Amino acid sequence: MIRRSFLGAVRLGQHRVLPGIPQVLPRLSPTSAFGSSTDSLVSRFCPEKTDLKDYALPNASWCPDMLNLYQEFLEKTKTDGWVKLPSFKSNRDHIQGLKLPFGLAVASDKSDWRIFTRCIQEEGQGYEYVIFFHPSKKKSICLFQPGPYLEGPPGFAHGGSLAALMDETFSKTAYLAGEGLFTVSLNIRFKNLIPVGSVAVLNIDVEKIEDQKLYMSCIAQSRDQQTVYAKSSGVFLQLQLEEESSQ
Amino acid sequence: MIRRSFLGAVRLGQHRVLPGIPQVLPRLSPTSAFGSSTDSLVSRFCPEKTDLKDYALPNASWCPDMLNLYQEFLEKTKTDGWVKLPSFKSNRDHIQGLKLPFGLAVASDKSDWRIFTRCIQEEGQGYEYVIFFHPSKKKSICLFQPGPYLEGPPGFAHGGSLAALMDETFSKTAYLAGEGLFTVSLNIRFKNLIPVGSVAVLNIDVEKIEDQKLYMSCIAQSRDQQTVYAKSSGVFLQLQLEEESSQ
Repeated sequence: MIRRSFLGAVRLGQHRVLPGIPQVLPRLSPTSAFGSSTDSLVSRFCPEKTDLKDYALPNASWCPDMLNLYQEFLEKTKTDGWVKLPSFKSNRDHIQGLKLPFGLAVASDKSDWRIFTRCIQEEGQGYEYVIFFHPSKKKSICLFQPGPYLEGPPGFAHGGSLAALMDETFSKTAYLAGEGLFTVSLNIRFKNLIPVGSVAVLNIDVEKIEDQKLYMSCIAQSRDQQTVYAKSSGVFLQLQLEEESSQ
Repeated sequence: MIRRSFLGAVRLGQHRVLPGIPQVLPRLSPTSAFGSSTDSLVSRFCPEKTDLKDYALPNASWCPDMLNLYQEFLEKTKTDGWVKLPSFKSNRDHIQGLKLPFGLAVASDKSDWRIFTRCIQEEGQGYEYVIFFHPSKKKSICLFQPGPYLEGPPGFAHGGSLAALMDETFSKTAYLAGEGLFTVSLNIRFKNLIPVGSVAVLNIDVEKIEDQKLYMSCIAQSRDQQTVYAKSSGVFLQLQLEEESSQ
C-alpha cells in the first residue's frame, strides 16, 4: 500500500520551493526539459504497439462536430506535426516502466484503478475527449463532448467536469512539454455553460518555464469560436520520472 | 431539448455585469439573500419526506475516519445548528418545482442525468462525500473519501476530482447562503496529494457578498489538520430560481 509517511516529502508551493523540495527535485534546465527530450517523451507516451485500450478513439456516441474535428486534426498529424495522444484507463499504464518520485511508491494491488477522466466507461455517458499535442509548438488541443453523467445545471456540463478536464489536459501537456508532473495551481474563469452533448474545444499553450515550473493557459470555446466557455491558467511542477531497474 | 440560442443571455463576468445580464438578474440585496430566506432555502433543500435516494449516507465502503467524522457532525445537527444536506442523483431533483432562469429552459427527456459528483454509482469506487451546512455561520464542511476511479498519480486522487468537489461544495453553499447559482471563478492551490481511500475534510466559508456575487474560501486538509491538501477560492453569481406555475 501507499507509504503515507513519505507523502510530506512532496509538498507543492506556488511561489517558492518549500523546505525539503530540493531532495526530490532534480534541477532541470529549461533546455533539457524543452529540448530534444520532448521527442523521446512523446515516443514513449505513444507506443506503436500496445494491447491497452485507447479511449481517445471515435465511438458511436460522438456527434458529427466531434467526428469532423477529430478527422481534421488526424489529417494534421500526417502533415503538420500534430500527435494524437492515446488515453489509457489508468496513469499506471501511461508511466509503465517508470519510477515515481521518492515518497510516492505504491505497491500494485487488485483494485480497478481508473484515471478520473476515464472513470465512466459507458460510451457517451461521461467524458468523451481526445487530446492532440504539437511537440515543437508546445500546444495542445482537446476535443471534449460531455455526456449526461457530467451534468451540473440541468442540461449543461458541471463546471467541475470542465475544471477536471482542463487539469488533465494541462497535466499531459506539461509532462510531454517539460516533465511537468504535479498541479501547483489551477485558476478558471467561467463565461458560458457547455450544453451536454455538444463539443467544446480546449486550446492549451505552454507560456513559459521558470524555476522548475511550467506555466500554461487554456481557452475553451465552441467549435465556431463564437462562444467562450471558460479561460484558465495552470502551473505544474517539474519532476523527473526515472527508468525502473529490471529485477 | 435545450434552447441553445438563448444561452448567450447568461454570460458570466468576473469583474462586471456584462451587457444583457440585468434582464435576467433580479437585483438581490445582501439582506434578502443572507437574511431569513436562507432558512426557507434550507428547508426546501432538505425535504423531510422524499422517495429520492440520498447518496450522502454511510455505506459499507466508508472507512472508520469517514464514519467517525460523519457521526461527529451528525451530533452537531442536534445541538449546534448544523444541517446535513441530502445529495440526490441529479440537480433536477434538487430544484424540483423551480424554474431555471430565462435562456436555460430544458425539456425533460429520458436520459439518465446525473450530477457529475454522483456519476459513479458503485459504492466506494468514485466519490464518497457528505456536506454539512451551518445556515447562520454561512459555513460548510464536506467529508470526502476518494475511490480508485478518481485516480490521478498512482494511488492518489486526481487534482481535478478535488477541483470538481470544491466547485460542487461551493455551489451548494452559495445557493443556500445567498442564491448563488453559477460559478464565476475557481482558483486552487494544491499543496499535497490525497491518498485514495483516505479522508479529506473541506472547510468552506462565505467571505462576503457584493455586486450579486458570493465570495467563498475553502481549505482541504487531513482529519488531524496536519496536512493541507489544497486551498481555494470561488466566486458565484446570484440568480433567483422562481416557483414554477402549476399547469
